[in-house]
Amino acid sequence: MTYCVAIKTNAGLVFLSDSRTNAGLDNISSFRKMVLYEETGSRFMALLSAGNLSITQTIRELLQTQQIEDSSTGAPITIWNATSMFEAARILGAAVRHLHERDGDELRKAGIDFNVSFLFGGQIHGEAPRLFQVYAAGNFIEATNETPFFQIGEFKYGKPVLDRVIAPELPLGEAAKCALVSMDSTLKSNLSVGMPLDLVVYERDAFTASRVASIGEDNAYFRNLRKSWGEKLRQIFDEIEEPDWNEGAACESLQTINSPHTNVKPLRKIMTPRDKLI
Amino acid sequence: MTYCVAIKTNAGLVFLSDSRTNAGLDNISSFRKMVLYEETGSRFMALLSAGNLSITQTIRELLQTQQIEDSSTGAPITIWNATSMFEAARILGAAVRHLHERDGDELRKAGIDFNVSFLFGGQIHGEAPRLFQVYAAGNFIEATNETPFFQIGEFKYGKPVLDRVIAPELPLGEAAKCALVSMDSTLKSNLSVGMPLDLVVYERDAFTASRVASIGEDNAYFRNLRKSWGEKLRQIFDEIEEPDWNEGAACESLQTINSPHTNVKPLRKIMTPRDKLI
Repeated sequence: MTYCVAIKTNAGLVFLSDSRTNAGLDNISSFRKMVLYEETGSRFMALLSAGNLSITQTIRELLQTQQIEDSSTGAPITIWNATSMFEAARILGAAVRHLHERDGDELRKAGIDFNVSFLFGGQIHGEAPRLFQVYAAGNFIEATNETPFFQIGEFKYGKPVLDRVIAPELPLGEAAKCALVSMDSTLKSNLSVGMPLDLVVYERDAFTASRVASIGEDNAYFRNLRKSWGEKLRQIFDEIEEPDWNEGAACESLQTINSPHTNVKPLRKIMTPRDKLI
Repeated sequence: MTYCVAIKTNAGLVFLSDSRTNAGLDNISSFRKMVLYEETGSRFMALLSAGNLSITQTIRELLQTQQIEDSSTGAPITIWNATSMFEAARILGAAVRHLHERDGDELRKAGIDFNVSFLFGGQIHGEAPRLFQVYAAGNFIEATNETPFFQIGEFKYGKPVLDRVIAPELPLGEAAKCALVSMDSTLKSNLSVGMPLDLVVYERDAFTASRVASIGEDNAYFRNLRKSWGEKLRQIFDEIEEPDWNEGAACESLQTINSPHTNVKPLRKIMTPRDKLI
């Protein structure tokens, strides 16, 4: 399994990936799931992948040589001369489709799903940073102000904190922190997501990764974040009032949560031995 | 989809279920997923179900008449004369298997999975409260001190807070609060889990539900909990320090997360246009 998250804010992009791969719980390995593509001063792209490792590694290779045709001139477009991230995402989609055409049947015969997904974000000179999620069918969607982040792999444990915190106006440092908290929840609940983590922060118009970090078990910042998040979470949990109970209206033996402003209707469907005669 | 959670502490049991069912996102309904079985002074059981509604409703009906044989005497055992919750869980398993035998083939022909799972907890006079999770094959597991809660349905969003908070010594009010926070995270991230909620708190040796509540959108306590949890979560997020960056050792152009006590090795696999010639 895998967990990768990418965030687009007004200030730039944040990418975070784990490095655990597994073929069963008894066969785990560590593979990096993030690759950066850069051309100084003109383009920066980060590719994060989830799914079958043999497929994602091959697609990474293909991506550098894959071409699509310019719809008006017919000239070949690659990720190195694409004039927009949208074109670059189309090239990634084309690489996915190319591999599916080439290997899909053989994989299916062996009972292997063509199971891949990608986060692909970056900036090409002349436009703002953009972020895409690319599916196994080669189609893709783009992050917007309403939904400025994407996740692939084991995404559910880490989604609530992103839902609550991420917004376009968030500074990049805060976005990176949020990605790490989201990763922490995932690491805590799913063994198939594992350290080390790769974190890349991209500042708009830098056309190179602004911060790159490999975060292992011994990383002091991340260890502190995990500890302090866990403690504070427990602390605010304690601060929230326990439910208060009062007598329910519908049934004299029942008590219901105290809600002075509402008319609580307690539900109670009790089955007694007599019911089984019905 | 569904989200149900059940918690066993030293003081008793807590059960919480949502009430959303759906056949596609365009066809949602509200069905109660919790049923209580009681015999005053001698037995209390709560059954929470997830999966195909036609199957779970039928199993609820079957449960009241299902019998297993006592292994020594051959006498019939039902949930109303079972002397342990373990026997009661076996009866539920037998009801699941009975229905699978009766309808499994027909459902399979129609392309419908025999997809069900149950939380089944309670207390029978003479033993302590017990909690079980019962699978579609009729087999089951029991909650222990190490893992004192079970979840069925859409469980991932709400698992991190349970992992952090639930412990056998937790008072029942705190356990109920934790179940509600866990439900809140799930409601926020998954449309297919919906209000109203059914909450039952069972105090050890009561042999009747101690607190029963139906919590709708207008419930003041739950609205306050959701608001206050969201605000506090955001607040502790802000309290955690942002990552601090310093120059990385491996590559002069890189910066890495500041970790004064560790030897951080930054990872950087940059691909430039030249790479594609390799």
